[in-house]
Amino acid sequence: MTSDQPVPLPRIGTGTDVHAFADPADGRELWVAGLHWPGENGLAGHSDADVVAHAAADAIFSATGLGDLGSNFGTSAPEWAGASGAALLAEAAGRARAAGFRIGNVAVQLVGNRPRLGARRAEAERVLSEAAGATVTVTATTTDGLGLTGRGEGVAALATALVVHEG
Amino acid sequence: MTSDQPVPLPRIGTGTDVHAFADPADGRELWVAGLHWPGENGLAGHSDADVVAHAAADAIFSATGLGDLGSNFGTSAPEWAGASGAALLAEAAGRARAAGFRIGNVAVQLVGNRPRLGARRAEAERVLSEAAGATVTVTATTTDGLGLTGRGEGVAALATALVVHEG
Amino acid sequence: MTSDQPVPLPRIGTGTDVHAFADPADGRELWVAGLHWPGENGLAGHSDADVVAHAAADAIFSATGLGDLGSNFGTSAPEWAGASGAALLAEAAGRARAAGFRIGNVAVQLVGNRPRLGARRAEAERVLSEAAGATVTVTATTTDGLGLTGRGEGVAALATALVVHEG
Repeated sequence: MTSDQPVPLPRIGTGTDVHAFADPADGRELWVAGLHWPGENGLAGHSDADVVAHAAADAIFSATGLGDLGSNFGTSAPEWAGASGAALLAEAAGRARAAGFRIGNVAVQLVGNRPRLGARRAEAERVLSEAAGATVTVTATTTDGLGLTGRGEGVAALATALVVHEG
Repeated sequence: MTSDQPVPLPRIGTGTDVHAFADPADGRELWVAGLHWPGENGLAGHSDADVVAHAAADAIFSATGLGDLGSNFGTSAPEWAGASGAALLAEAAGRARAAGFRIGNVAVQLVGNRPRLGARRAEAERVLSEAAGATVTVTATTTDGLGLTGRGEGVAALATALVVHEG
Repeated sequence: MTSDQPVPLPRIGTGTDVHAFADPADGRELWVAGLHWPGENGLAGHSDADVVAHAAADAIFSATGLGDLGSNFGTSAPEWAGASGAALLAEAAGRARAAGFRIGNVAVQLVGNRPRLGARRAEAERVLSEAAGATVTVTATTTDGLGLTGRGEGVAALATALVVHEG
């Protein structure tokens, strides 16, 4: 860039995801934020139901205008059925780069009672950042016993992403 | 800009909106993301209840510090009662530009079971981008049967906007 | 910066918070958006339960990768128990600056039936901006009677923050 060109504005996107906990009798494993959580009841879904990775991927699609999780990896793309959340995030990031975007960062907040992210935050951020090829931060909160997450029916994640088109 | 001036930082904003579905007996039309959805039960509200357009407009107000939907178009501004969501979005964008802001982009995620955005995403993005005079991306997700959107009580939208003050 | 260096991309973050209303018999004061709301039933919590200030602080942590409210001010940091939301926001902003970040802006939306922000928006924005040392905008919406906020069980806040690392 030379100094007489306008600075290209970055673009932002938003993504949220919610998954219900599975029936414990189903023996589903819990995958959240790119990590396996041994001993915890899993989330239901066709995929690994990793709400954090899914919200992050959807935020990248939202920022870039490349559709969303459903249009990219839904029923019309059966080869992605069963893919891990981290794999979907890596593919979303790859499609963004292929379209000429640099990914600045992605920030995701896990909303729910379980799992307890704190002790494994650094590990989650490392796994997801590696998948995205850009900084992914992961934070967590609860909802004071209220709503679908407070009642323990499921887990939610809210993500935002910043990208810039470098064409 | 010359290279010895600090790069002006863009500003971001956030906006969410929720509307309940109307009693089907009321025969309300459904308007979401700037589009009419024939044959679908409508959302309740004084306005067209277009949660996607409303969240987008509120994100622009949030980013620019020009108040919010209520302070701009609420009971103190009766001339806007009944305006379409796309008209409110266009007016919010116009007020932002009048205050010296350039709108980089707006990203909105529709959260709910109905309508099914997929087949009409490009159309929605075209209508809302034209209204805003800037790129508006629209994505969609569901909440796995949980919460107010999962139970089909209503529809939510989450938006983020990036602007820069150019004076 | 010289014109042959790449423009450093800003980073964004997201933060949400939810608190339940206290039992009116408890006589809790209501603190939201850095302001005391006389005559209103308070929110429950160890702290002042200021969801707007908490979401804003968490968005700064999310953008900077410095952890979250829990890791910074939780049970391992008892000196912050009982601190006001504005004090937590000021401290979060201070930790971000100490790590080399400039805070561009923070935008927070209050979601709930009470308090009615409108008449005191400017006051809230002034108090929170002073705490953060950066522009904080505050907007508000309701959820049409639906969900935990619509039923009046509690109040939520959604925040986003933009920062840039200046090292």
